[in-house]
Amino acid sequence: MSTIDYTARRAKLDQQLDAAGIDTLFLPASQTDLEYFTGLGRGIPSFGNIGYTNHWISGAFLAPGKDPLFVLTRHHQEFHLPGGVTGDVITATEVDDGAEVFKRAFDAFAKQPKRLAVAGVPNTDSCLHEKDAGSRIAMSGRTWSETTLQLRACRPDAELLVADDILNRIRRIKDADEIALMSEAARMVDQVMAAVSDHVVAGITELELASEIDLRIRQLGSPSSSFDTAVWAMGPGLDRDASERLSTRALQGGTGVNFDFGAIVEGYCSDFGRTVHIGQPNEEYERVYEVVMAAQEAGRAAAVPGATGGDVHRATRAVIEESGYGEWFRHRTGHCIGKDVHELPYISEEDQTPLEPGMMFTIEPSVFFPGRVGVRVEDIFLLAEDGVTVKINELNNDMRVND
Amino acid sequence: MSTIDYTARRAKLDQQLDAAGIDTLFLPASQTDLEYFTGLGRGIPSFGNIGYTNHWISGAFLAPGKDPLFVLTRHHQEFHLPGGVTGDVITATEVDDGAEVFKRAFDAFAKQPKRLAVAGVPNTDSCLHEKDAGSRIAMSGRTWSETTLQLRACRPDAELLVADDILNRIRRIKDADEIALMSEAARMVDQVMAAVSDHVVAGITELELASEIDLRIRQLGSPSSSFDTAVWAMGPGLDRDASERLSTRALQGGTGVNFDFGAIVEGYCSDFGRTVHIGQPNEEYERVYEVVMAAQEAGRAAAVPGATGGDVHRATRAVIEESGYGEWFRHRTGHCIGKDVHELPYISEEDQTPLEPGMMFTIEPSVFFPGRVGVRVEDIFLLAEDGVTVKINELNNDMRVND
Repeated sequence: MSTIDYTARRAKLDQQLDAAGIDTLFLPASQTDLEYFTGLGRGIPSFGNIGYTNHWISGAFLAPGKDPLFVLTRHHQEFHLPGGVTGDVITATEVDDGAEVFKRAFDAFAKQPKRLAVAGVPNTDSCLHEKDAGSRIAMSGRTWSETTLQLRACRPDAELLVADDILNRIRRIKDADEIALMSEAARMVDQVMAAVSDHVVAGITELELASEIDLRIRQLGSPSSSFDTAVWAMGPGLDRDASERLSTRALQGGTGVNFDFGAIVEGYCSDFGRTVHIGQPNEEYERVYEVVMAAQEAGRAAAVPGATGGDVHRATRAVIEESGYGEWFRHRTGHCIGKDVHELPYISEEDQTPLEPGMMFTIEPSVFFPGRVGVRVEDIFLLAEDGVTVKINELNNDMRVND
Repeated sequence: MSTIDYTARRAKLDQQLDAAGIDTLFLPASQTDLEYFTGLGRGIPSFGNIGYTNHWISGAFLAPGKDPLFVLTRHHQEFHLPGGVTGDVITATEVDDGAEVFKRAFDAFAKQPKRLAVAGVPNTDSCLHEKDAGSRIAMSGRTWSETTLQLRACRPDAELLVADDILNRIRRIKDADEIALMSEAARMVDQVMAAVSDHVVAGITELELASEIDLRIRQLGSPSSSFDTAVWAMGPGLDRDASERLSTRALQGGTGVNFDFGAIVEGYCSDFGRTVHIGQPNEEYERVYEVVMAAQEAGRAAAVPGATGGDVHRATRAVIEESGYGEWFRHRTGHCIGKDVHELPYISEEDQTPLEPGMMFTIEPSVFFPGRVGVRVEDIFLLAEDGVTVKINELNNDMRVND
């Protein structure tokens, strides 16, 4: 296990909260922000929601100069946190009045005095003024509405706001520890793709390949795949659209098989893609394959400090448009990545955030032309300290043709 | 595909909304409420969040006497809804100002006149008074805070509230179509458990069994498992706690192997459990096995119309307490189930909702005593029209011992 310094992360957060005039931040247990700033692990999500009485309560209050105060259900602690919790916890059992427990926790946290220094940095704010700890309350953008409305009930006059900008400003710059973990997650998918490529043959089903990928990823230590593993064939005579990402159908010769999957290392996600052709590809596939790889390289070259995600997207897209296939590159070029698979800034037309060293993002151009050709590639890139964007994945993207 | 009558579901919803004085309801695309009331399918969730610009916008506005108005990102429509959308849609692209699009949709929906009848029922409310369509705005309890705060921005003076009580009041009673789909999902896990039981032998890993279950469930047509498949061994000398639900370790003789998994049919989830012993069980295992099965039967017998989930929980728990293992039955007895795995009412100490015919719920007692013994069973039950609670799963729960 790596030794992430959560205190240092919270010191950065405190500065941002102070600058934004936020007195109290609530981070729910359902989102990665809490894991990032406190180390409290999240669970594997389910297709049908799971829920417990007072489930909405689970999360933590944070504020500049204070240690986090966790509010958690008994169920959550007993069945979803085998490692326990480090820090102060207020527990709601299933027979408790959740609103009462939440309000009590909020009030206790508000009254708790600030420390004079956090991680060695003097907390000057606490000496200058003591604001009411509930005049400006922020939260993760995916906090449940039930929790949001309970926060409002705790302080009816408070201003409520979403803190995603502030949280992302810290999270989007990866330090050396994070780069190492992200690289390990990238290495896992490299290794799984190399092993699975040999099994991409006519007769096997898309689902069987996806199942093998999911198993191999978990055998390497990942708690699950980082998102739903996708394996889908496209090519002449196959009318399927790329939005159908997996089927139980058997692969046939003369098609390109697209892969999209990721692994997890200590909560950090990879996201990866390749295309493997079964049987001799036609001239269009070979041409499109080259175009897509050239587009990825154009995106990489454009990803310099100060360029925006929009710039990288346009550089990538230009290569595909020049080839005449622009109509079939229908999505954004990529996204930053970390504990979430899609993090801001996005490598997308609308993005105006200047890229900085430490950012890690995917470049994943595609051409998905139903009935004709489907090719994709996806790797994670790091804008390194020297200003050059480098690929983290080690598996090459040479055209692979199976018998 | 079954032919769910969404118009009839919405007519029930309209009555509930009218009775609660709710003018506008927002159902986000991330939750099952939208699928239940409109048929708009949900996606498979991911461990690391996925996200798109304006992602928070996706969902629909509903109101008594009006057809739903969907607000969806371009990305969501192109890549996550291969079946398309039935109904009116306002689209936000990635370069649009999401808040502006959302406000425009809200205002357009508010101005839309009510129909005079819905599903043949005269909409008398629309004739009596025309309230401002934004004085009382409700939403699903897991709507994102970003969306919640945007709803507030649309109508700063509105009262915002969580509609889960109202939504659950309708959803918790399953009709014949739903019972058929739930039974099909139960049949899937029966079949998978029967097939996998033969492979529960010393040497195979817990992960390999979980992987086989996930594959078989999907081969039967389920888009994924309904939650994270769990396989964990307990018994003498195994110190593991039941909160560690899966490992990459190999099974050994002399242990009981616990299973917890579910399948999905048209969005409806099953949830299921058995325990298989490897090698001759000791006397304690045999005794505890009988106690746990007797506890489940006691819960079933207590589940009569008018009894509460609390009553069923206490009846189940009493059998285990009398046996002296009460300390090791640490969770609630069960939960209602449908499009979500855990639906209200819960079969739990605090529940005070009278059970009614049409409710479907799990009864899942356990004894998890680290280092000694672990036994669980879980089936789905239906409180039938004649007032008797019957088991939906067909696989028996006789003690199974493998060589």
